[in-house]
Amino acid sequence: MIRAGIVGGTGYTGVELLRILALHPDVEVAVVTSRADAGRRVDAVYPSLRGAVDAVFCKPDAATLAQCDVVFFATPNGTAMLMAEELLRQEVKVIDLSADFRIRDHHLWSQWYGMEHVCPELLAEAVYGLPEINREAVRSASLVACPGCYPTAVQLGFLPLIEKGLIDAGHLIADVKSGVSGAGRKAQLSVLMSETGESFKAYAAAGHRHLPEIVQGLQGIAGQAVDLTFVPHLTPMIRGIHATLYGRLAGDADDLQALYAQRYAGERFVQVLPAAAHPDTRDVKGSNQCQIAVHRPQGGQTVVVLSVIDNLVKGAAGQAVQNMNLMFALPEEQGLQSITLYP
Amino acid sequence: MIRAGIVGGTGYTGVELLRILALHPDVEVAVVTSRADAGRRVDAVYPSLRGAVDAVFCKPDAATLAQCDVVFFATPNGTAMLMAEELLRQEVKVIDLSADFRIRDHHLWSQWYGMEHVCPELLAEAVYGLPEINREAVRSASLVACPGCYPTAVQLGFLPLIEKGLIDAGHLIADVKSGVSGAGRKAQLSVLMSETGESFKAYAAAGHRHLPEIVQGLQGIAGQAVDLTFVPHLTPMIRGIHATLYGRLAGDADDLQALYAQRYAGERFVQVLPAAAHPDTRDVKGSNQCQIAVHRPQGGQTVVVLSVIDNLVKGAAGQAVQNMNLMFALPEEQGLQSITLYP
Amino acid sequence: MIRAGIVGGTGYTGVELLRILALHPDVEVAVVTSRADAGRRVDAVYPSLRGAVDAVFCKPDAATLAQCDVVFFATPNGTAMLMAEELLRQEVKVIDLSADFRIRDHHLWSQWYGMEHVCPELLAEAVYGLPEINREAVRSASLVACPGCYPTAVQLGFLPLIEKGLIDAGHLIADVKSGVSGAGRKAQLSVLMSETGESFKAYAAAGHRHLPEIVQGLQGIAGQAVDLTFVPHLTPMIRGIHATLYGRLAGDADDLQALYAQRYAGERFVQVLPAAAHPDTRDVKGSNQCQIAVHRPQGGQTVVVLSVIDNLVKGAAGQAVQNMNLMFALPEEQGLQSITLYP
Amino acid sequence: MIRAGIVGGTGYTGVELLRILALHPDVEVAVVTSRADAGRRVDAVYPSLRGAVDAVFCKPDAATLAQCDVVFFATPNGTAMLMAEELLRQEVKVIDLSADFRIRDHHLWSQWYGMEHVCPELLAEAVYGLPEINREAVRSASLVACPGCYPTAVQLGFLPLIEKGLIDAGHLIADVKSGVSGAGRKAQLSVLMSETGESFKAYAAAGHRHLPEIVQGLQGIAGQAVDLTFVPHLTPMIRGIHATLYGRLAGDADDLQALYAQRYAGERFVQVLPAAAHPDTRDVKGSNQCQIAVHRPQGGQTVVVLSVIDNLVKGAAGQAVQNMNLMFALPEEQGLQSITLYP
Repeated sequence: MIRAGIVGGTGYTGVELLRILALHPDVEVAVVTSRADAGRRVDAVYPSLRGAVDAVFCKPDAATLAQCDVVFFATPNGTAMLMAEELLRQEVKVIDLSADFRIRDHHLWSQWYGMEHVCPELLAEAVYGLPEINREAVRSASLVACPGCYPTAVQLGFLPLIEKGLIDAGHLIADVKSGVSGAGRKAQLSVLMSETGESFKAYAAAGHRHLPEIVQGLQGIAGQAVDLTFVPHLTPMIRGIHATLYGRLAGDADDLQALYAQRYAGERFVQVLPAAAHPDTRDVKGSNQCQIAVHRPQGGQTVVVLSVIDNLVKGAAGQAVQNMNLMFALPEEQGLQSITLYP
Repeated sequence: MIRAGIVGGTGYTGVELLRILALHPDVEVAVVTSRADAGRRVDAVYPSLRGAVDAVFCKPDAATLAQCDVVFFATPNGTAMLMAEELLRQEVKVIDLSADFRIRDHHLWSQWYGMEHVCPELLAEAVYGLPEINREAVRSASLVACPGCYPTAVQLGFLPLIEKGLIDAGHLIADVKSGVSGAGRKAQLSVLMSETGESFKAYAAAGHRHLPEIVQGLQGIAGQAVDLTFVPHLTPMIRGIHATLYGRLAGDADDLQALYAQRYAGERFVQVLPAAAHPDTRDVKGSNQCQIAVHRPQGGQTVVVLSVIDNLVKGAAGQAVQNMNLMFALPEEQGLQSITLYP
Repeated sequence: MIRAGIVGGTGYTGVELLRILALHPDVEVAVVTSRADAGRRVDAVYPSLRGAVDAVFCKPDAATLAQCDVVFFATPNGTAMLMAEELLRQEVKVIDLSADFRIRDHHLWSQWYGMEHVCPELLAEAVYGLPEINREAVRSASLVACPGCYPTAVQLGFLPLIEKGLIDAGHLIADVKSGVSGAGRKAQLSVLMSETGESFKAYAAAGHRHLPEIVQGLQGIAGQAVDLTFVPHLTPMIRGIHATLYGRLAGDADDLQALYAQRYAGERFVQVLPAAAHPDTRDVKGSNQCQIAVHRPQGGQTVVVLSVIDNLVKGAAGQAVQNMNLMFALPEEQGLQSITLYP
Repeated sequence: MIRAGIVGGTGYTGVELLRILALHPDVEVAVVTSRADAGRRVDAVYPSLRGAVDAVFCKPDAATLAQCDVVFFATPNGTAMLMAEELLRQEVKVIDLSADFRIRDHHLWSQWYGMEHVCPELLAEAVYGLPEINREAVRSASLVACPGCYPTAVQLGFLPLIEKGLIDAGHLIADVKSGVSGAGRKAQLSVLMSETGESFKAYAAAGHRHLPEIVQGLQGIAGQAVDLTFVPHLTPMIRGIHATLYGRLAGDADDLQALYAQRYAGERFVQVLPAAAHPDTRDVKGSNQCQIAVHRPQGGQTVVVLSVIDNLVKGAAGQAVQNMNLMFALPEEQGLQSITLYP
């Protein structure tokens, strides 16, 4: 059994990790930390886990965590980078669900995240954990930076077109909509039900932290500079991300449907929908799937890609476990077979 | 492997059966019927099941169904009674999720359901599938009538008090709230999102079809006549039932908390919350649990019981599979371990 | 023009007062206070009021407020009692939307609200502002305590039965459901959309602060002690209260429908629905109406009353303006004619 | 008093017309038709209108309607064109909220709406009722075609940029999100709460009927061909449209904020938000406002415009009344002063 630790077990991604790992046949959750709830039973804080998780929150402590085989950080930005080095030294694998190791250029990171990076030397070692792009690198990684939720949906959506050079990388648009759980489990006015229910708005149109991450990823695929306009929106639902992506066709694009089908043929967690379909975020709720459809309205030069994920699963905890499976040479879908709850 | 058939696979309870059975280690879904969608792939109709269910809807046909070991009816009322006799004759076990076999008195049934019962002689043979009351009878049953969603939440909530004769059976009140999926997957104006979202109302205050079923169940427990006022309400959410139950304490009631804890100590799918807790429907969403809390406000003579279930799981498909496990001598929780999706 | 002041203009009841008073033909909002937003334009904080409210928040200050004809307190409990005496001395009428003057017994008040009352001598002078019961007293009042949202829905629902002594006052049950705006505009985890959306729960079953207020009101009507079990619930919607009330018929009750129709015949803001109807909270959203239906299931001895209001209008700001109209001898419905937004 | 008739009073736009006109000081609603509900009181069908509307639905009949000064068609597409000619002949003004008279080219109309146009000769006479573009023409019109909801939000958003030739008309993108009330009040599976709640999806990516209407409008402004990619989405809320518009800056664009502020300075129903703001659909709910913000992310060449309306008010019934006010030389905001309901 793999001994796993979860740092930051009381946020939504932490609880989601607990939900998934509780049923993972090869993992034992040995440590779950929470500064605020240390000493309390997990299922007293989260009655949804009664009968499934028999654990008590403890304070985060490097020595205890070092006894794990793998430690997940489901923490606010800036926490994982404080402990990662020590854990890696003790041969504990680290999977970070926060943004600390996603951006290779630490100056750029500091600019967007508003703090200094304490271990920039680890950035070269960190593997960006989007298995559909980086599978082999993840297998041998000790430190994996899980992609953000928006970046996962956007990169998987654009990937086949950009790999083949079929769209103009200088004019990409990503209009993306997220459920409110993406804002985390924090007492803040802006995500009260009275403030977000029955309403829709864009936010951070001037620039969202996930922008440099997406650009870095797309540039890696394209092998050239990309210009992306990314506008995130808050949707009155709890889970789900829907990316609507727009690009100008630049090359020969006979059969976009076949292109997507072939690119993702072997992928367990990307499903290309039939031509003319529109994915619905409800169809991936609670599952690790990304569902994608590709359209070319009126046969014109603009291609529209629709890409949906559950922000807490493929956009966070599920993808983290997918990476863990790769790092420990387990079947990639181990523990991730749960089926979408519909309706 | 148990070969299972599902008649009426396109309603919400049918899809939920598919979701649960797809991961059940001892069951193979051999037949899924749908008059409307016959010939279509299940996952074309329900993209939520892509990658998990590899089946095609067929028309309901007794000969095909007779090759199954067990057939689930997830059909509108009045359908199961047309086919059950034939299937039972061929030694197929039948689990009916509709109301056809729930009421032992067929005159009463006809009065509430507005049609004649075509096989009243089967009513004596049918076992009411609430395992927490009828476990042994279910084990040896060939025909199980799964309880309605409201009746499950109400009976489990009242059970310990009525068994012990602690409340006045002549003055029971059940104020129950349901999510809109309880109305089924039918094109009807009253459950449009524009009609039910952001609003709350009671309905059927004059008498709901689940009333005689609940009364029959409670009378069986009480061994005497009961007088119940039952008011159902429509809540602006998709899944979940919350029953708020009121009774007048009649006997010695020292420790209601202990009473509930003891009564349900061995039950895998009933969880008694700590004193002073309030169950939340979200904490059982997608799981087969019933969570219950018992209160005695201001130490008075009125006891208040709060009981929550997921109407499509413990209130329908999950309970059906729980019954199937009992009928086939499998572990009662087989295939039902999935954990609540939170948030 | 009546010069009005609003203390606490940034909570939901404060904004609702602004919305209503902005269109009131006889009122000018002269002062709107907010400690947190002092100096900011009202419509910069609330874009919903752009073009309708041309005001700037200021700090609360007795001297400024004393220049008003009437001051509304839309503040947390414990604030109005600090300023009311001074304003009344300067002949400013005071309408308090908080709980400070609702309970006549200040010991009882302290017990439920957890603080000492600073001006208990004013309690005798305060008029409980439920016009349907206290209309004449309100007309001549200087200090009005507006009822809570739950108490408004419950008292209007029980009123006709209790006035006539038709139900057993010793066994009343009020099962009441509220939208989340009732929790106010505060950064708190429990009313995040991710925590309250798509879910339903009871809370405060052991005793909610509105209990003594309702009991006081019902006892005033009944002229005897009443025993009420009151269980509030949180519903996944923003606005609306639905009270489901249960009583045991004690007297002669030939025609409950006529009883209600007659009792409320002259009331502008109580609408008795036809027999067999079920009020829906959506039908009073944004309006000052209370809609009521009365049922006697199966002709038995239990009467069920369904009573709905918009918690922020008839349950708060609308009722406050209704009281103001009475205090200033204006038509009772002045400024309150806006029609429910449907759907 | 203007005598108004409403044909199709039972859809959401019809009810919204009733809500607005009931408080309009210069209008008497003389006739409200509904085939399905003829003979029933309006407030029996819509309890939200109790006390506000004292009318009975009648069958649509040209002779009765001809006694009105103005007739609103809140009907499915294809109905208004059957009656308009007769009413116009009798000097009744006609305001059509459906699509029958929006497209000047009747071949194009037939292609998108799947039926023949019965009075193409009226198309030249019909005035497209977007007052912010066509105010003078509306004043003297007898037949007004009210714009669709999506076209209103999109055209008002793009208008200042296109008028000035500041963006490349060959590469426009409109990513637009609508609440479910836009689908109308029809019993259809796809807008059940269980199907649309808590989920988000695009639809009609291959081409939506509002596309040719928007293109016609934008071309009229631009004076040249435009290429628009328009993707509508269904959002889990009842009311509201949010358009996110993308264009490539083509000309000199020093101060986009000033451009918008100046263009809409005199408009009563378009509000340009301060720089860096993001409009929220909740802030226009129930009001006739369009709120707009303009962004230029990272100072690049892509301009992002955010434009929100209430689809049933500025997107339908409110705009229809705004047009009526112009046609009858009333103040443009008459009857349209109601303020957004928040929260």
